Amino acid sequence: MTARTRPFTAEDHRARMDRAARTAADAGLAGLLVAPGPDMVWLTGYTPPADTERLTMLVLAPGREPVLVVPTLEAPDAEHAVGASALTFRRWTDGTDPYAVTAKLLDHAGRFGISDNAWAMHLLGLQRTLPGTSYASLTDALPMLRAVKDTAEVELLAAAGAAADAAFEEIRAVRFAGRRETEISRDLADLLRGFGHEQVDFTIVASGPNGANPHHEAGDRVVGDGDMVVLDFGGLKDGYGSDTSRTVHVGEPTEEERTVHDLVRAAQEAGVRAVRPGAACQDVDRAARAVIDAAGYGEFFIHRTGHGIGVTTHEPPYMIEGEEQPLVPGMCFSVEPGVYLPGRFGVRIEDIVTVTPDGGRRLNDTTREMVIVE
Amino acid sequence: MTARTRPFTAEDHRARMDRAARTAADAGLAGLLVAPGPDMVWLTGYTPPADTERLTMLVLAPGREPVLVVPTLEAPDAEHAVGASALTFRRWTDGTDPYAVTAKLLDHAGRFGISDNAWAMHLLGLQRTLPGTSYASLTDALPMLRAVKDTAEVELLAAAGAAADAAFEEIRAVRFAGRRETEISRDLADLLRGFGHEQVDFTIVASGPNGANPHHEAGDRVVGDGDMVVLDFGGLKDGYGSDTSRTVHVGEPTEEERTVHDLVRAAQEAGVRAVRPGAACQDVDRAARAVIDAAGYGEFFIHRTGHGIGVTTHEPPYMIEGEEQPLVPGMCFSVEPGVYLPGRFGVRIEDIVTVTPDGGRRLNDTTREMVIVE
Repeated sequence: MTARTRPFTAEDHRARMDRAARTAADAGLAGLLVAPGPDMVWLTGYTPPADTERLTMLVLAPGREPVLVVPTLEAPDAEHAVGASALTFRRWTDGTDPYAVTAKLLDHAGRFGISDNAWAMHLLGLQRTLPGTSYASLTDALPMLRAVKDTAEVELLAAAGAAADAAFEEIRAVRFAGRRETEISRDLADLLRGFGHEQVDFTIVASGPNGANPHHEAGDRVVGDGDMVVLDFGGLKDGYGSDTSRTVHVGEPTEEERTVHDLVRAAQEAGVRAVRPGAACQDVDRAARAVIDAAGYGEFFIHRTGHGIGVTTHEPPYMIEGEEQPLVPGMCFSVEPGVYLPGRFGVRIEDIVTVTPDGGRRLNDTTREMVIVE
Repeated sequence: MTARTRPFTAEDHRARMDRAARTAADAGLAGLLVAPGPDMVWLTGYTPPADTERLTMLVLAPGREPVLVVPTLEAPDAEHAVGASALTFRRWTDGTDPYAVTAKLLDHAGRFGISDNAWAMHLLGLQRTLPGTSYASLTDALPMLRAVKDTAEVELLAAAGAAADAAFEEIRAVRFAGRRETEISRDLADLLRGFGHEQVDFTIVASGPNGANPHHEAGDRVVGDGDMVVLDFGGLKDGYGSDTSRTVHVGEPTEEERTVHDLVRAAQEAGVRAVRPGAACQDVDRAARAVIDAAGYGEFFIHRTGHGIGVTTHEPPYMIEGEEQPLVPGMCFSVEPGVYLPGRFGVRIEDIVTVTPDGGRRLNDTTREMVIVE
């Protein structure tokens, strides 16, 4: 779920690596071990040709130059990464021990932050090679490392959001009744690509009872007149994510369908209104959940209210009970309450929101009223 | 790099899980912890909608029913997996601790095998929750778990290989000179899809000096007359992998180009001839490498000779010095020596080979002579 962060320069990447190393030192860590994926692409601009059993790892330690441990046969690619000029390369060749190579760069009694998605095999290799070291996942140790976006990043997220909105404006005009979910899903994916997404992560089309499964993707069900249809779609445009949901209705809704839709809309509005610097992440969840609870639908809102977004479509901060992290201007995340009535239908409404000094600013702006489709 | 293993039944998956649990017990393990990806799709047929921070983990323990720990909101998908009837589900909901849920299923002083690609975050969560446990990656603990393919699997790999061969037969007829590597790469990807691949993992087109970088993918370089061009392509067809390489030449080759190509062909032939039950994996590497070494090109063969293939295009067993694992009928892997002359050109020839009682049987069968293209 990552792509090259093309708009950024070697200097941008160098500054991010410097900041990450300083943040690690402030947190009492001896360094950071960064695996291929969103952390690495954000820090260095580098994505290996494939994420395989061959170890590729960025080592950031306070006061030292960043080092990329890389398989010899992938080094030529790594040397072309946008951030390569800030990196020293340590090549290792098939048949040698990459953990021994990495260990030479590490404090043998240090505690390190490691990318959430680093392979367990690689973590075990390091633990075996350096039994005096200890590790914490980046989400545990430095959850906010990538959470506060700079102006250029917010603009990229806004552009991705605008592209997703444009896709919604077109999809609402297509025919739903009589077509399979998978067909509409494919239309949505084509629209996202057409509006500039280089990567489509999901185009959920969940009609009727399928809408009651929040992670239903799209199936063979033929959408019918009278169906509620949850649309939830996103991906990466110029390396930054979109993720938005709207729930549409084929023909006239029942009173209950309208009631539940209005309720979710009110909950989403309450969640967005709770966004302001200094509020806790959990306050956003509580604000949205309180509306649904008060209406007696609390047991049908079965997921957290939101998640961060950046070079991935799912990252910290999480808008969830127990997350006391204060909101800071530049944070970007989804606000997406839902109500799921098993066997019947579901409703979810989702916008990406960025924290500004004055409160939350939505990066999606299509109507949140129930859209009637054909 | 995985897809659903559609041709297999719930009973097939149950048998695989039983076998995996028994193999784990034989290796002195208290169980296996299986992450989303190739291990999980092979064992259960299940691929989560996305591989995220939300824990999904299959727990296999000798003498116990398999349990899938799954986020509540993804449970409806998991319940539709081909192997679901053999599984018990343990749901966990956002805001609760998935490691505590998993810990209840585990021997608190046991040693477990864990998928190579399990997230480090999840391994750390388990280590923290159960400090008396220890872990080994599946590649270390049970490297051959998926290595010996049954007849149906070999047939699927053969069909994927035949599809890749069909793609080569078409690509060799297209015009190379004057076109960008990326254009030819796109043609190759379209051909793989056209011949039934649901997933394309790589379509390397490395012309002239780019061919000297074994993992070069495809760039803006315009192929010219006189170029050597390494083609290396593969993906998944019906859930099983293809991976083949041929090196073609635009117009008449020089004597040196022909010499190097003949050398690699002889090395590849020697590698395939070394395949027989009971030989060690490293014998295949040694056989291929000896030919290149003897010709004085040893320093330019900078990677191992091969890797296993199955529900991924890269997995154990590895044909590499130091790998003493004996070959067993049903194992399937690449034999792909290469010579890479920096700044000049490269040659690689690769077939997938399966071990039979009588020796190696190639699953790719296009000519290994140098093909002249336009």
